[in-house]
Parts: sequence; structure tokens; C-alpha cells
Amino acid sequence: MRCLVLGAGGFIGTNLCRGLVAQGCFVRAFGRRQSFPELLTGCHWISGNFSDPTSLATAIQGCDVVFHLINATTPASANLDKVADLEANVVSTLRFLEICRETNIKRVVFASSGGTIYGVPNLIPTPETAPTHPITAYGISKLAIEKYLSLYEYLYSLDYRVLRLANPFGPYQTTLKNQGVVAAFVHRALSGAPVEMWGDGSVIRDYVYIDDVVDAFVLAAFHKGSNRVFNIGSGEGRSLNDIVAAISRLLGYEVNVYRRAGRSVDVPVSVLDTELAISDLHWVPRIKFDDGLRRTIEWMKSAGV
Amino acid sequence: MRCLVLGAGGFIGTNLCRGLVAQGCFVRAFGRRQSFPELLTGCHWISGNFSDPTSLATAIQGCDVVFHLINATTPASANLDKVADLEANVVSTLRFLEICRETNIKRVVFASSGGTIYGVPNLIPTPETAPTHPITAYGISKLAIEKYLSLYEYLYSLDYRVLRLANPFGPYQTTLKNQGVVAAFVHRALSGAPVEMWGDGSVIRDYVYIDDVVDAFVLAAFHKGSNRVFNIGSGEGRSLNDIVAAISRLLGYEVNVYRRAGRSVDVPVSVLDTELAISDLHWVPRIKFDDGLRRTIEWMKSAGV
Repeated sequence: MRCLVLGAGGFIGTNLCRGLVAQGCFVRAFGRRQSFPELLTGCHWISGNFSDPTSLATAIQGCDVVFHLINATTPASANLDKVADLEANVVSTLRFLEICRETNIKRVVFASSGGTIYGVPNLIPTPETAPTHPITAYGISKLAIEKYLSLYEYLYSLDYRVLRLANPFGPYQTTLKNQGVVAAFVHRALSGAPVEMWGDGSVIRDYVYIDDVVDAFVLAAFHKGSNRVFNIGSGEGRSLNDIVAAISRLLGYEVNVYRRAGRSVDVPVSVLDTELAISDLHWVPRIKFDDGLRRTIEWMKSAGV
Repeated sequence: MRCLVLGAGGFIGTNLCRGLVAQGCFVRAFGRRQSFPELLTGCHWISGNFSDPTSLATAIQGCDVVFHLINATTPASANLDKVADLEANVVSTLRFLEICRETNIKRVVFASSGGTIYGVPNLIPTPETAPTHPITAYGISKLAIEKYLSLYEYLYSLDYRVLRLANPFGPYQTTLKNQGVVAAFVHRALSGAPVEMWGDGSVIRDYVYIDDVVDAFVLAAFHKGSNRVFNIGSGEGRSLNDIVAAISRLLGYEVNVYRRAGRSVDVPVSVLDTELAISDLHWVPRIKFDDGLRRTIEWMKSAGV
């Protein structure tokens, strides 16, 4: 399989590229910059901006499957400039899909957001069929892209799969993008600083280890069947306070917390129902939370990031 | 009530402005051009482009309620240039909502599309809670705007209501915008030309008379309650062949049909479940289809359009 990974230099991208190379795939890696260039040695790196159709077209040419992991914003930043969020993510994805139409792309696998697309859920854990009422522009953009993917399949038979990711964590997640609670907390804890927490710590999320996420992307590239959208998470809810407690337990000392006011972009609970991925994508999550956290801490200690 | 009608020069806008003036409202009418200027004599007309924030801000200033009826595309044209559709409709609406935040707008009432937002429905008639899988970029833009309205209420307490309209028909609908089957068919029939039909005429739609639509908009401006999204239709399905038969019956002669290939933008069936509007908006549709069609024919004969 000849793959293109868009957003290859980031956390999920770096891990996915390594996973695909390990599977013997030809991997073209596209992004603005590489967080860890040495980790992408088996890949063909192309520097480029997602909103620039020329470099994008060059990258796409000759590939079978495109993994679209690019996100120009975060849930918090997207609300601050909704037009910019829409332009950078949705308009750019539409231009990307037009290029896919013109080339021989067999499938697009898109990283959507299980944590923002449902909004404040009525049902926990939340299945793919739940209503989608995002409370961030970030979630609306993800939803719109899912709808355009469905439209492109309907109009032009461009095949696709969507993974609605919970909160991935693990090695190669840095604190630079202001996203990723586990990385931020571990980083602060290791440096002896108090972790910064928005709200009272009761906000519950679904944390899924990155190796399991990579498995899901690879399975989505090969999946046969009529389902298009899959939740990918642990199916278990953990509060921010739980995360701090787990880090303290593994480090063997109490991590201090500096509390700040809660944020409007945070839904109180997000836990995904992943039955469909398990039954239809044949996805088998392997890494328990504590093991994943231990590996994350070990990596962060060794990398010194 | 001080109202602003965006898209006031068009079919729905002209009828809504007249309805609001008849209710004693102060009506500011905004649009690119007036189809029938003499019909808007009681309104304060402002010429402007929806994508130009300056003229829009001038129009909004001092109003309580804004009726947003603007749509720069049709279901068929939107698919031809999806980026242009997104820019003209969604991006412009986001800029409009930013202006609403800055001013003292009490409510936005948005004309969404019951015929395209659901896609190919599993349930007929289709309730508001049905899944939304549009098969046109037009429908995706309408859906995205609904989500942004919900976001603006969540973030900034900007109140809103959405009417998902079926296929409105009636006086002041012209054939210029290439939208509105009843107007197109009646126009051709009156001029003695065969009506142009896409497909075999089995496509079923829900036709709702414009006076009932105007009632729904006025009720939506005053509605108290927690529901935000209402289907507005007749709840009855009619095929294109039914429409031709009804026109032939009322005209007293057989209308000829010129058949063309079916279009990918047309879902086979669209009929809306309007129970929520009836029970919660206290909407009472008054005009039966044949009466509405008779009035439409009479108007078109007298107007000579």
C-alpha cells in the first residue's frame, strides 16, 4: 500500500508513519514541520502547507490511501476565530478532496473528533449514532468535513473512513500545541512544577493510547463493509483528578495542582462507545491506561522534552 | 417589533416583508435587488450584498429580530463549486453572526432546508430528530449554519430559531433562480410550452403554500420554549407527475411534459413531519394544496411573469 500521511510531523502522524513503515508500506509524510525528524527516517518527507494545493497535489500523486490528520486549530483557538477555523480546515479539505477526485486515490481516512463532535452527550458512553451538537467551531468543522466526505463518495465514489478519536496520548506528544492533557500534566510533573488545571478537575474524558489509535487507522485503511464512521477510544471515563492521581502513583510523589477557572469549550463528560470499531473494524485495543501512562512517562523522561 | 429581512427581494422575502408590515412591524428589507419593488412599499429597503459586512452592519443596527433568508446558491449549483457555496453561505453567515453579537439583536430566524438537510431519509414523513446526511453541498452549508447558530447561543446567548422548509410555492415566485418546480411548471404551462421534468416524474416532494410559511416565520420570531428547529411543510408527498396533473386539472387542458435525465442532487422522496411546529410553534397551516395552486396560477396570469 502506498500511503500519504497529512500532518505527518505531529503526534498522531509521527506514530502512524512509524506504524505504517513497520507494516512494510511505502509512506509519504506531508506536513509543515517534523517534531522528531529522526523518527521518520523510513518515510519520504514532503514539507508543505495543507492550504497550498500545489505542494499537496505533488504529495498525493501516486498514492492509494491518504490519512488526513491535519488540524490547523484547537478546540479553544477555533472559537476565537471561527472564520479562520472554517477556512483553514474545511475549505482546505474541500480543495484537497478536489485533488483526490482528479487522482487515483482509493481511500481517504480522516481523523475526526469524538470529544467535540457530539457536544454535551445525552448518552454515555456515546455511540456513533448519537446527535451531533458541537459546542466548539472545531467540532463543527470536523462535522462538516465528515459530511463532505460522504458527499464525495455519493457524487464521485471517493471511498473514505472516519475515525472519531477520543483523547489520544503517548510518546511523541509534546506540549507545544496546547493540546493533550496527559502530555501537559506529565511534563509539568516531571519538571517539578504544579500541573495547570481548568475547573475543579471533575471534567471526564476518554484517554486512548496512541498505539491503539495507530492500529485503528491501519484497520480503517483496509476495512471492507458499509460502515464509514467509527469511534476510537478506551470506552472508559477518567477525570482530570484521576489523571493527576495516576501520575502521582506512578511517579511515587504527590503532583501539585494549580487550579484555573473552567472553560466554556469543555463538555463535562466525553466517553465513547467503541463497540462498532471492535465488532466491525476488528479493532482490539491492547494497552491499558496505566501501562500507556507508564510508557508515556518513560518516553518523556528519556526524551527530555 | 423592529425586523430586518435578509434576502427581502426574493420570493420568500417579499412575502414575509408584506406579512410583517401587515402585522404592524417596522420592516427593514435588505437584498441585492427587488423582484417586485412595488410590493415592498411599506418597508425600508437597503440595497446590499450579504458578503459585505459594512452594508450588513448598517442594516442590522437598531433591529430586534433578523430573518435570514439568504442563499447564494441552489442545490444543483452548490455541488458544482462547493468552496464557493461554503464561502458565500457559511463564511458570510459567520461574519453576520459576529455583527449580531456586537449589536443588540434579540433573535435570528434562519431559513434552513427540510428538503436537503436530511439527505435520503429512512423515515417518511421525516421528523427533526432524523439523521442529517445531505447529498448536496447546499444541504451541508445549511446544516453547518444551524450548528453555528447553536454555538452562538451557547457561547454568547444569541437566541435563534431554525425553520427547515419543505418546498414553498405561491405568488411572487419567479423562474429566474432556477428553483421552484411549481412556478416553473405553471409558467411553462401558461405559455403553452411543455414543462421540463428531470427523471420519470416519480420524485416526491412536500409543497407548502407561502402564506403558511410566512405564518411560521412570524411565529418563530415570537416563540417561547426550548425547541430551536422546526420542520415547515405540508406533511404530504406529491410526485412531479401529481403536480403536472393538478395544473392540467385547474387549467382545464393537458400540460405536455418534456422529460430529461434524473439528477444526482434529487433525493427520491422528501416529506416533512410537522407535528412539532403544530404543537409547539402553534402553527396552523391553512391553505390546501389545490387552493394554493389556484392562487399561484391566478397570480402568474395577472402578473404575466
